[in-house]
Amino acid sequence: MGKWFSAFFSQAGFEVMISDIDTELTPEDLARRCDITVLSLPMEIFPDVVRQIGPVMPDAALLTDLCSLKQTQVQCMLDHTSCNVVGTHPLFGPAERSIQGRRVAICPGRGQRWLVWWEALFRSRKAKTTIFSPEEHDRTMAWVQALNHFILLCLGKALEEDGINLNHVMELATPSFERQLHILARLCHQDPELYATIQLGNPYTGSAIETFNKYARQLMEILSGRNRREFISMFREVQELGPYLLKHFEEEH
Amino acid sequence: MGKWFSAFFSQAGFEVMISDIDTELTPEDLARRCDITVLSLPMEIFPDVVRQIGPVMPDAALLTDLCSLKQTQVQCMLDHTSCNVVGTHPLFGPAERSIQGRRVAICPGRGQRWLVWWEALFRSRKAKTTIFSPEEHDRTMAWVQALNHFILLCLGKALEEDGINLNHVMELATPSFERQLHILARLCHQDPELYATIQLGNPYTGSAIETFNKYARQLMEILSGRNRREFISMFREVQELGPYLLKHFEEEH
Repeated sequence: MGKWFSAFFSQAGFEVMISDIDTELTPEDLARRCDITVLSLPMEIFPDVVRQIGPVMPDAALLTDLCSLKQTQVQCMLDHTSCNVVGTHPLFGPAERSIQGRRVAICPGRGQRWLVWWEALFRSRKAKTTIFSPEEHDRTMAWVQALNHFILLCLGKALEEDGINLNHVMELATPSFERQLHILARLCHQDPELYATIQLGNPYTGSAIETFNKYARQLMEILSGRNRREFISMFREVQELGPYLLKHFEEEH
Repeated sequence: MGKWFSAFFSQAGFEVMISDIDTELTPEDLARRCDITVLSLPMEIFPDVVRQIGPVMPDAALLTDLCSLKQTQVQCMLDHTSCNVVGTHPLFGPAERSIQGRRVAICPGRGQRWLVWWEALFRSRKAKTTIFSPEEHDRTMAWVQALNHFILLCLGKALEEDGINLNHVMELATPSFERQLHILARLCHQDPELYATIQLGNPYTGSAIETFNKYARQLMEILSGRNRREFISMFREVQELGPYLLKHFEEEH
């Protein structure tokens, strides 16, 4: 994503400097010289680099990041610098050609002016931006990413179970399940290290998974009790989400 | 689906007769006079109608059905008639305009000649047909339908939980989760009664859900133990499904 955003900022007319493990330019030198420092790092080494560059950042500068989690990360930046801080989470991968139509979550840290300017920059490039507190961002992402991957991993493992013939599954796939298998297949493009950090690092992962499991237990009881009426009532409740979800997606596109 | 297939068979050049609750033609009269009788009924009343018409079917005729489950249904037809029997499961809904490219599962019952002819009829109309034993059909459908709906219902209920802001979820949806929400939204077009019967009537529902839950428990242990290495190893295992699934879908399209 670092490379992707380097190209993005160059195209937007900025002069871009890069410090990496193989560059002569050190993170400190870069942080001292730039108006905006964008951290694109594995979350494991993120705190070390923030500790290293935070204190040398000019007060008028902006420190921001591209991490998939924001609560610990924005706090870490606030703790180690007195300059302006904004958290950024681009909700797409480096396979996308353009930012147009893609989502970017922006979390306030310190400094209103930079926040407004930063969001306007993405909007001018037709990204869909939304401002979230770091806490609300992580809480929501526990459902969007941690729970989503939890479900996909359990489904994937279940499909590899002895006695299940995956060819038969594909030959009998309904349109709904075929779509589910497509989502599962997309996992092969993802980075297991990043997803481990997202799953283990999000403070709300447990709560999202536990909520899913609460309903899993409830539904299993309904099924083992052969309670047809209760099953239909749960099905109808979930169906009510449909028009709401479809309306949202239609308005977006 | 009865209406849909009535149009399909008419277009294929057959003379179609219909017996329904509001027709003068009784099921017995129809069964006596037709070469092929196709049962399109709620699974709840299916056995009653089979008992009613099975004994009057001419030995050279074909009795078939459109039920979503096949093990009990094919056995029921075999038990109550001495004519030819084939189980049919069209894996699509009446919203489809054409059978072209759609899947149809065909289950042998009694009589090889009708089976071959029946499959050829669908193939000539460009449907994707596959022959399954009734047992293998239901076992596979427990994963494709019962487990799929189990997951979708639990996810839907979890998204309605207090403290979850569905607007935030949609604003932060990754491409993967956005696809998941689209599958969820499609549930509003389905018939809760039919899905209750599929969920409660498939003898393999419990086994599919239990397998999913086995891995859910395993993954929750990995997460609560903060076992990063094990998480990555599970993620990599599931990723291996990707190329296999993608290859299958590419070959189909």
